[in-house]
Amino acid sequence: MENKLVGACILGQSGGPTSVINASAYGVIKTALESDCITNVYGAAHGIAGVLSDTLYDMGKEDPGELELLMNTPSSELGSCRKKLADPDADDTEYKKILEVFKKHDIRYFFYNGGNDSMDTCSKISRYMEKVGYKCRVMGIPKTIDNDLFGTDHCPGFGSAAKYIATSVAEVSKDTKVYDTGAVTIIEIMGRHAGWLAGSASLASLCGEGPDLLYLPETDFDMAAFISNVKRIYAEKGNCLVAVSEGIHYPDGSFVSEAKTSATDGFGHAQLGGLASLLAAVVKKETGAKVRGIELSLLQRAGAHLASQTDIDEAFMAGMMAVKYAVSGTSGKMVGFERDTSSGKYVCKTVLLPLDTVANAEKKVPLEWIMPDGAGVTGDFTEYVLPLIQGENSRVVENGMPRFAKLKKIIVK
Amino acid sequence: MENKLVGACILGQSGGPTSVINASAYGVIKTALESDCITNVYGAAHGIAGVLSDTLYDMGKEDPGELELLMNTPSSELGSCRKKLADPDADDTEYKKILEVFKKHDIRYFFYNGGNDSMDTCSKISRYMEKVGYKCRVMGIPKTIDNDLFGTDHCPGFGSAAKYIATSVAEVSKDTKVYDTGAVTIIEIMGRHAGWLAGSASLASLCGEGPDLLYLPETDFDMAAFISNVKRIYAEKGNCLVAVSEGIHYPDGSFVSEAKTSATDGFGHAQLGGLASLLAAVVKKETGAKVRGIELSLLQRAGAHLASQTDIDEAFMAGMMAVKYAVSGTSGKMVGFERDTSSGKYVCKTVLLPLDTVANAEKKVPLEWIMPDGAGVTGDFTEYVLPLIQGENSRVVENGMPRFAKLKKIIVK
Repeated sequence: MENKLVGACILGQSGGPTSVINASAYGVIKTALESDCITNVYGAAHGIAGVLSDTLYDMGKEDPGELELLMNTPSSELGSCRKKLADPDADDTEYKKILEVFKKHDIRYFFYNGGNDSMDTCSKISRYMEKVGYKCRVMGIPKTIDNDLFGTDHCPGFGSAAKYIATSVAEVSKDTKVYDTGAVTIIEIMGRHAGWLAGSASLASLCGEGPDLLYLPETDFDMAAFISNVKRIYAEKGNCLVAVSEGIHYPDGSFVSEAKTSATDGFGHAQLGGLASLLAAVVKKETGAKVRGIELSLLQRAGAHLASQTDIDEAFMAGMMAVKYAVSGTSGKMVGFERDTSSGKYVCKTVLLPLDTVANAEKKVPLEWIMPDGAGVTGDFTEYVLPLIQGENSRVVENGMPRFAKLKKIIVK
Repeated sequence: MENKLVGACILGQSGGPTSVINASAYGVIKTALESDCITNVYGAAHGIAGVLSDTLYDMGKEDPGELELLMNTPSSELGSCRKKLADPDADDTEYKKILEVFKKHDIRYFFYNGGNDSMDTCSKISRYMEKVGYKCRVMGIPKTIDNDLFGTDHCPGFGSAAKYIATSVAEVSKDTKVYDTGAVTIIEIMGRHAGWLAGSASLASLCGEGPDLLYLPETDFDMAAFISNVKRIYAEKGNCLVAVSEGIHYPDGSFVSEAKTSATDGFGHAQLGGLASLLAAVVKKETGAKVRGIELSLLQRAGAHLASQTDIDEAFMAGMMAVKYAVSGTSGKMVGFERDTSSGKYVCKTVLLPLDTVANAEKKVPLEWIMPDGAGVTGDFTEYVLPLIQGENSRVVENGMPRFAKLKKIIVK
């Protein structure tokens, strides 16, 4: 094979973790360990930070059974970082260090798993290596619960978070309707700029437990209209369930949650209650109803026990295909997903996307999928998300508790 | 049979819902429908409130398949209430109304499923019916995630909440350790007066992800010692995970969370952030670390998708046995649990407890199960809880979402 490139590989995990980022890691590690072209498989401790400090774990020395448990282990097992590299044309100090480490370990394959910023890192390293003429194939693997990566139909991590959110909203909805005295409940969901996660709360309607009001950051938030909607629904039904993205904002762009930082309690401590608490306080004052704010917080991105098997399988596939594409000669691309419904059912295929186009754009919920009053999503949204939450995962349970992967993390000398 | 009593029965659900209270309901309904002595099986809308208003649902008219789905449907399907009845010796107005409804529908069996207050209701009704000479067998069925009912080894609902808490803490712990920059995370768990739920966070240690600090309401909280512990652990490990009961209090009995009501934000709204937010603010100020407060809120009592099969089975058994005991002649008792480990493995048996002794006491975590510094629990605690979280449930999933029971709730004329 003309394209044959033999050498070691590095996998790095970057950005906020998800329930399935380790399934992508397993896809990379397993496929790389089986590849004829890849001599050694290394995991970078805390993403690019571990490359810069030459802190690499030897994945070949791990127990294969433990590695397989990565399929159902949440968070980023190798450690993550939020480091942003400088533009190599302006300052190549860090790139020189990376090149040194690559040369030392004969790294010929670099796999980086993350979101927008990670694809930026990946793109810069790819360009630098090409510029200095060091042969190394660089591949991006998508990851984000936010589902905001450009060019791909969806992102690994999103489906599991969506399933967690929809299930939790349905369960909480049942709970909030139990008394004859009524209540208003406000559930805060992650997603600073894109409403994919918040919109997923709408799937609870499949259980007859969908939110009455649902606000995404794609449209401007109108506090007066919100209060009026809550009052109307509470008067009609005696209950009102609201799902809201953490990123909702006023027409001037300021976050509704920003007010939270301005108060201190009686002991002089800053109040850290989030958006849900703030909206709950507003609604309580305006309606006098029993009001509760619930923030799904880290639970929604760490809830591997409820991960969608479709998402796990696709995350693994993204990692596996990154290695396969790279070994076949591809570089400077991210593995993306394309949805093929031509057979009448959902099929997910991988496609290759140029790293630099992914790095510099953000995919938001199309406005035509948001209800005209900005307080819900359309059937098209539900239809889009539904295939991604399918499949109950078959995680290993020991003593009634999840059995996570236990890696030895032996550092490469 | 000498004791044979023929007539209709009423089941009521009361107090805060759990993941498995409907499994107890199914135990009552199924067993009652199959009983020769019970002519009609009615469900009271919103507990005793539905008896007082004569709002009863005819369970015999429900689809058996839908009734079976109650085994995995969270919240109280018949509706709940927090109504406390007067002492019948002081004011028997409501009891007369109850008697009227009982006579109208020939109610000879009354099953009431709830916590302390519900057993109080149950006890009062039992005494009143005896006093006026109306033949009706009254049975209490325990329910509470708080696990604070006296006389029973444990309560249905607790095991599932414990499993949810332990699993969520383990998953969140993985997430919080992902960056090399460190973080302090504070998880707030329900349980105003008893620390059974907060203590269950310790089971996350089975995954190597237990909390570093764990505070229960059984001991006095010392803010200075807490801050000093957090500082020490954060300095040692770069991370610190704290699990805390919502009911922690200072030596004078005042709740640590009470400060939360004293602040208003810039718009004049009261800040409703809970205990986790408050402690997070304190720790942030004292350490400068990245701090996050997470409140498990209603999720921990509604998370039926993660309910323990042991708990579901025992909840069903409690309901079933209440009917069987009543039909055999028992009245004025609550069905309790006794743990039998004589065979070397955990076996749960039912026992009968006098309603009035259950109603007037609260079972707390024994002080010898709490670490001397008040910042953790002992192995005895873990050993006690572990059998209760065993077994993954086999809930029905449709389209990737839980399939809850859909009852017709046909009102009895």
